[in-house]
Parts: sequence; C-alpha cells; structure tokens
Amino acid sequence: MSIPPIKPALMDYLPYIHVVLCRPSHPANIGSAARAMKTMGLTQMTIVAPQLIATPMTPQPPVFQENQPFRLPEESFVLSSGAKDVLENARIVDTLKEALSDTVISCALTSRRREISVNPQTPRQLAPEILQMAHQKNHVALIFGNERFGLSIDEVMQCNRLMTINGNPDYFSLNLAQAVQVVSYEIFSHIDMPMTHLIQSHNPVPHVEIDGLIGHFAQIMQEVGFFERRNQERLMRRLSLLFERAGIEREEIDIMRGFLKTVGKRLEK
Amino acid sequence: MSIPPIKPALMDYLPYIHVVLCRPSHPANIGSAARAMKTMGLTQMTIVAPQLIATPMTPQPPVFQENQPFRLPEESFVLSSGAKDVLENARIVDTLKEALSDTVISCALTSRRREISVNPQTPRQLAPEILQMAHQKNHVALIFGNERFGLSIDEVMQCNRLMTINGNPDYFSLNLAQAVQVVSYEIFSHIDMPMTHLIQSHNPVPHVEIDGLIGHFAQIMQEVGFFERRNQERLMRRLSLLFERAGIEREEIDIMRGFLKTVGKRLEK
Repeated sequence: MSIPPIKPALMDYLPYIHVVLCRPSHPANIGSAARAMKTMGLTQMTIVAPQLIATPMTPQPPVFQENQPFRLPEESFVLSSGAKDVLENARIVDTLKEALSDTVISCALTSRRREISVNPQTPRQLAPEILQMAHQKNHVALIFGNERFGLSIDEVMQCNRLMTINGNPDYFSLNLAQAVQVVSYEIFSHIDMPMTHLIQSHNPVPHVEIDGLIGHFAQIMQEVGFFERRNQERLMRRLSLLFERAGIEREEIDIMRGFLKTVGKRLEK
Repeated sequence: MSIPPIKPALMDYLPYIHVVLCRPSHPANIGSAARAMKTMGLTQMTIVAPQLIATPMTPQPPVFQENQPFRLPEESFVLSSGAKDVLENARIVDTLKEALSDTVISCALTSRRREISVNPQTPRQLAPEILQMAHQKNHVALIFGNERFGLSIDEVMQCNRLMTINGNPDYFSLNLAQAVQVVSYEIFSHIDMPMTHLIQSHNPVPHVEIDGLIGHFAQIMQEVGFFERRNQERLMRRLSLLFERAGIEREEIDIMRGFLKTVGKRLEK
C-alpha cells in the first residue's frame, strides 16, 4: 500500500505579498502576470491606472478613469489561464501612492540606471526579507512598470527598495510576465528555508507614517522660511527617500515629530 | 572624472548549455522560449521532431519529416523578439537520442510524479553542476517536453537528471517559455556577473559628517527645549544610528543642516 502524498497548504502569509502593475498597457500581459504569480502562490494583484491599448482581441479596450469602476477585458482573463481569481480580486487604484499606503517594503523593479541613491538588490537578496516581513503580517509590494517605459523616476522614488534581475548584458528583454515569473519564483524558492537566522529587531512602519513625518517637516520648514529659493518638492522627496532607505522605526519617527512639534511651539511664542 | 562602466563579456562556456524542446507544438512558444533563454545568456536551442499545430497566425504550419529540411514559421521569429539568432542557429533533429549524443548531463524537466528512480532536484540544486560541467567544456542539456503532454517516460529515461520547478501545489501551470525562463534565470544567477546596467550613484559620507549633523541637531534641540524630561544621550544615539543605517549622503546632510540653521536663525529673532 502506498501512502498518498499530503498536499501542503500554501503559507497563509503569502497574501501579504502584493504584485503592483503600474500603468500596464497590454490586456494579455495583465493576464499572463496573474498566471505567473499564481504558479508561485502569489494571489494579490494591484493595478495602478491601467492604460490599455487596442489589440486584435481587444480592439476597444476600456478606458480607465479615476473614481470610476473599471473592468479588465476578456483578453486578460483568457491569458490568465486559470488564474481568473487573481484578476477578479485585483485592486484597481488611481495612484501608486494609494497602492502602497499600507506597505512596509516596496520593491521597485527596474533594469535601468537611475539617478537614485537606493542600492539595487537582486530578487535573491531581497526574498528573505520580503518573506519575513509578510510572515510578520506586514504588507510588501513588488512594483512593475509599464511595458514600454518601465517605472517613472517619481514611481521609483515612492519605493524603498530597488530590485533588479540580472541577465544577459547584450540582450535584456524580459517582458512583464517573465519578470513577474522570475521574481515570484525566486520568492517561492525561499519558502522551504528556515528563516530563523533572519530574525532582527527591526520594526519598520507603514508608508503612511513616513508621509506623516515628511508632511510635518514640510510644515515646519515652511514656517521657518526654509524653502525660500529652494525646490520644495525635490527636497521633500529626498528626505522621504532618506527615511525609506533607513527603514525608519516608530521610535525614530516619534523623536523627529517630537522635535518638530517643539520647534513649532517655540515659533508661536 | 567618472570612469565609464566596462560591459562584461558573456562567459564563453555558456554555449555548452543547450535547451532542448521535445516535440513542441506552438510556433509562438518556440519563439518565446528563445527569447527567455537569450535574456539569460543561453543561445543554443535544439528542437526535437516539432509537431506544430495550426494557429491564427500560422494556419498552415510546416510539417516536420525525418531527414528533411525544416524551417520554423514566421510566428516563432516574431515572438522571439530580437532572439532571432537563437532560432536561426537552432538544431532541428529527429530524436532526443540524437540531441543528447554529445551531452554529459541531461536534465529532464518535469512537474509530474513519475515511475522512475532518479531523484528530482530543483534548478537551484542543479545549477552549480551544470555550470561547472559547461565550464569544463562538457555539453549539458535541459530538456523540456511537449506543451500539453510533457516528456514521455521514454524521453525521461534517456536523461540522467530529473529537474523539477517547485510551485503552488494548487495551481501549477507554468507554460513552456515560463519554465525555460525560470531555469535559465536560475542558471544565470549562479554566475557572478556584475550588474553593469545599474551603476550606483550611492555616495556615502565619512562618519565625521554624521557626527557634525548630530551635533547640530543636539544644539538646536537644546535651544528649543526639546530635551526636557528626555534622555538626550539616548535620543542622539538613536538619531545617529538612523542616519548611519540610511547611508546618508552629502546632499541629505546639507538639507538637514540647512533646515537646522534656518530654525536657529528664526530662534534668534
């Protein structure tokens, strides 16, 4: 008598890992990405402001409008090949900011050189941290750009990790679904590994708290007249990046905000 | 003066690694597989007895016959997206035996349980051996089955390794090109290639500059009365840690110090 194999249940923390597609343009790619994710146990897709173009199968793609319901075309469902549930549950949002509001780790996928100061890491380097965070019930996002243009500088700046897939330097032509496949595969491949060697005391905060700190900084900087002759937007982006990169923790945010509050009070006198 | 990055050459032993497609049926999949290989530096494709079916773009696919020349349809080339050279150089052979005649290691890709006694291993487990063999100028083959039926028992028996990609036990639906992508990516990831396409702009500052910033913070915090009832030493240590962890850069230090200076001036008024 042979014992039937026990089918392992998928880890219940995998839904904390989100695949975010920014401004995707091909209905088929959205479906293929859903399929790629699901083969590796990932089910949470967020689509930011889709910009669908016409294809032979979808000659009149739906137009996305802010605050309006949006339904993916049939082509996406056909290409998802059994991962329809991923598409049906996909969140469709107006901005990347909205997609990332609850996330602690946000990995921007990019293959291009950029004027940014976050260190690029490979999926293999980042996978343990991603899994550990998800395991601790923190939301994590993998952010993929538009098929043709990738992520914009502004989109990359909203993320706190930069992920790059290494490949042939003479021909690097991974399409969207292939990139999603590689990253999802890499994450899944680390699941068997014991993660006990990775427990840190690091206790990062969700994105929205960093936004709050940056807002507080901007307010006080305004009050003391710091922005005069300076590019406010650029400055604040830079500060945001600094705190994201640091993985700023609650206590540090409290220190900073306490200081800003004291400065604000003194200015009132 | 900045030194231009040197583009590394691909390892000259990668052509010892062959991707073998057994009886593939979709012209598009052959093209997509070529693209997937090439993104990861693999260029040698062998096609065993293609059994092409009709598709909208290829209504009359060429029929393969032993010992007859065979040309892949245009659809394969279109889907290869710049990896045409891989298709043009592809060997088309009658039997798997012929494809494997020179190979030392032959890995059968399979996701199904089989009545065979070879232990299945993951791409990650097999990649070092594959690369080592190739480096020693031994031919290695990765053998992928027909899209619908996979490899036959007979085909698997001709291989000396069994490779399996782990994934979602409830939905394992990797298509041919995705499987080729994952295995090629895994092999490439074991090559120590510098990430030339991503020259970092990271520009950290010496310790003493962080000390200067922390001193400036302490001074202004003192002036506004922030330390009252707080442990100054601990606070400053924490801030120092935050900026160290972030790898704070010159420009960010300048922003912070500019802000502190402006606050200081306003307090004088």
